[in-house]
Amino acid sequence: MMNCIVAQSGGPTSVINSSVFGLVEANKELKIYDNVYAGLNGIEGILNKNIINLSAMDSNELDTFRRTPSSGLGSCRYKLKDSSLCEDEYISLMSILNELNIKAFFYIGGNDSMDTTAKLSKYAKEHGIDIKFIGIPKTIDNDLMFTDHTPGFGSAAKFIATSVLETYLDSTVYIDNGIFILETMGRDTGWLAAAGALATVDGRRAADYVYLPEVAFDKVKFINDVRETFMKNNHVYIVASEGLRDETGSFLTASSLGANHDKFGHTQLGGVAHYLRTLIIDAGITSRVKTLELGVLQRCAMHSASKIDFEEAHMVGRDALKYSAEGYTGYMVAIKRSEGNDYSSSSFLIEADKVANKVKYFPLDWVNSEGNNITEEAIAYLKPLVFDIPELKFSDSLPQYKVFRS
Amino acid sequence: MMNCIVAQSGGPTSVINSSVFGLVEANKELKIYDNVYAGLNGIEGILNKNIINLSAMDSNELDTFRRTPSSGLGSCRYKLKDSSLCEDEYISLMSILNELNIKAFFYIGGNDSMDTTAKLSKYAKEHGIDIKFIGIPKTIDNDLMFTDHTPGFGSAAKFIATSVLETYLDSTVYIDNGIFILETMGRDTGWLAAAGALATVDGRRAADYVYLPEVAFDKVKFINDVRETFMKNNHVYIVASEGLRDETGSFLTASSLGANHDKFGHTQLGGVAHYLRTLIIDAGITSRVKTLELGVLQRCAMHSASKIDFEEAHMVGRDALKYSAEGYTGYMVAIKRSEGNDYSSSSFLIEADKVANKVKYFPLDWVNSEGNNITEEAIAYLKPLVFDIPELKFSDSLPQYKVFRS
Repeated sequence: MMNCIVAQSGGPTSVINSSVFGLVEANKELKIYDNVYAGLNGIEGILNKNIINLSAMDSNELDTFRRTPSSGLGSCRYKLKDSSLCEDEYISLMSILNELNIKAFFYIGGNDSMDTTAKLSKYAKEHGIDIKFIGIPKTIDNDLMFTDHTPGFGSAAKFIATSVLETYLDSTVYIDNGIFILETMGRDTGWLAAAGALATVDGRRAADYVYLPEVAFDKVKFINDVRETFMKNNHVYIVASEGLRDETGSFLTASSLGANHDKFGHTQLGGVAHYLRTLIIDAGITSRVKTLELGVLQRCAMHSASKIDFEEAHMVGRDALKYSAEGYTGYMVAIKRSEGNDYSSSSFLIEADKVANKVKYFPLDWVNSEGNNITEEAIAYLKPLVFDIPELKFSDSLPQYKVFRS
Repeated sequence: MMNCIVAQSGGPTSVINSSVFGLVEANKELKIYDNVYAGLNGIEGILNKNIINLSAMDSNELDTFRRTPSSGLGSCRYKLKDSSLCEDEYISLMSILNELNIKAFFYIGGNDSMDTTAKLSKYAKEHGIDIKFIGIPKTIDNDLMFTDHTPGFGSAAKFIATSVLETYLDSTVYIDNGIFILETMGRDTGWLAAAGALATVDGRRAADYVYLPEVAFDKVKFINDVRETFMKNNHVYIVASEGLRDETGSFLTASSLGANHDKFGHTQLGGVAHYLRTLIIDAGITSRVKTLELGVLQRCAMHSASKIDFEEAHMVGRDALKYSAEGYTGYMVAIKRSEGNDYSSSSFLIEADKVANKVKYFPLDWVNSEGNNITEEAIAYLKPLVFDIPELKFSDSLPQYKVFRS
């Protein structure tokens, strides 16, 4: 018996289950492992022996699951300590994997999960344990190094751009329109906010201004810009990342929110739109300022997903299986964009420890000289990633979804 | 020359332009009027002579316009005074309509617009002016009397139900999940919040509790209910209308928000989700409470619209034209649901002054005995209204939209 196991970690995306499906489907075809098991709730679930056998699942159920947003296998935010500090978890985990005859472990996640993948691979090598550990990328934040982009980002980008388009139209119906501020996720990077610039009406970008965490927020310039555009158009549309910072690097809203921290030490954010609204009102520009925080819809609005994203999530899952059969361990499957005008992509491997705990920032040379929008080069990068819509299943006219929960 | 004019008023919906298109298309076929004009920004725009000729528009452009959310002709919140108090506006308006040889005026809006329709019709009759005034319903709130439901509601309901489904999945991925609160629009009525109950996962409703403004909010029962479900499931999903009130009829959040009022004396709301979150945390149930206010997306998320809604909006526009040719004035086109198991609908007329300034509440016998959810009878009413998805046009994989702005 030779089995493998897959698990999901960190924040959900709309297409994370497509990667699981890609892996299961490739194994059905290539017959590399006898069974593809899944740990429910990531590594935490595996340690609790919450494990199901995906190879034994009904194919119709799996087909619904692949089109389902959110971590269909459950998730965790479990931080594995270094094995030199605490070996117990490593011993438990390897023992559970051994019992199940696991020869390959696939971890779908962001940079924290790549840290886990690298640590487990290193531990296995050091202890002569023959299990391959491969990381499969997913994060709506698009902030992983080396990969051209991350599965999950394109669908989030599409939902954001569509929402900008629709709320732009909604916010311009009166003679007297006021100002609209859309707040996107993006703690450290501006990729998600940048996607707002994709929305165009009559060939003109809907968003007047797009603010990213990579550019120190200049309050005075912001007020001047907004005032000028409001005087001219009687309307301003602003897209702002939740992670905006001032010139000292402090989050604009950290203090007002009490700066809560999660287990990984990340500051919990939100409220940038309200902060900007207050700036505008206090500056006397107008009191008619509406705000919208897209919140978790950005990472689960499968009804507005990107087909390219859905397919690439499938690709990285499928290729992870192949790479494991070729003997690789301690790597993450990354995406490479091909040269040329027509978009296409393929996968390659990058050492997981190189990706772990690092952040890919939005390039500053893709920010306009005013620091308040993105360039056409950035648009050209983003545009192919939101291509087309995946086919969903419906039940009573609502999307039909299937998840596995412990 | 015999022309007609159409205008839009009040808050936008996703399908309000489908009614305009239905009217223009029916006139092309039936040749009742020489031209269908449109006033931009409602009656305010007509008074400013911001008028375009829809009959002269490119048919491809109109086809994009019909699939565009938000008031494609612009809107207003202009309150017409009674002619006995201020006749000037009536005289100006009738003179402008006369110049354009207008024989019928169609006003697409909610109950305030039906008030305007009734007033103008009465004034015209009293002064021997041969112009028919017909109201065409639209409001996501579904709160107009006599009509089975309002165009715009089904699409909002579908977006809400889909969002409940997707955020429910997103909020259940961890072992330790906490509580999720989704806040819907619905100042006076619970129709929109009720739509949240349509979301089901594995045949079970995703939302544990649905709170409507029609039921006085009982803080103690709320805390007990939420605590019990959280103890049992380690997760609670709550849908709450922005218009929740206590037993005295006061909005739960009115005081904390300073109770702003709009031109019609409506209290401006928002923040119920935060209020409930505070209740839960203060009661010591858990501090892991996430909130999401869907905001204006509810009335413009055309990418998740209902085809039935889209088609019925078309029907009321088309039939308004026919009714005007039959000589009716001072009426609103209402929707009748046919008897029997298979859903179908037709239009009928109801006096606009009967609809004006009234509110259709969510029936109390469609609320469960606990006052914290809706009955299966209510589900049966709601379900057909979210049927299927209208076909959109796309440009660079984002919906392609077209509006006319003054």
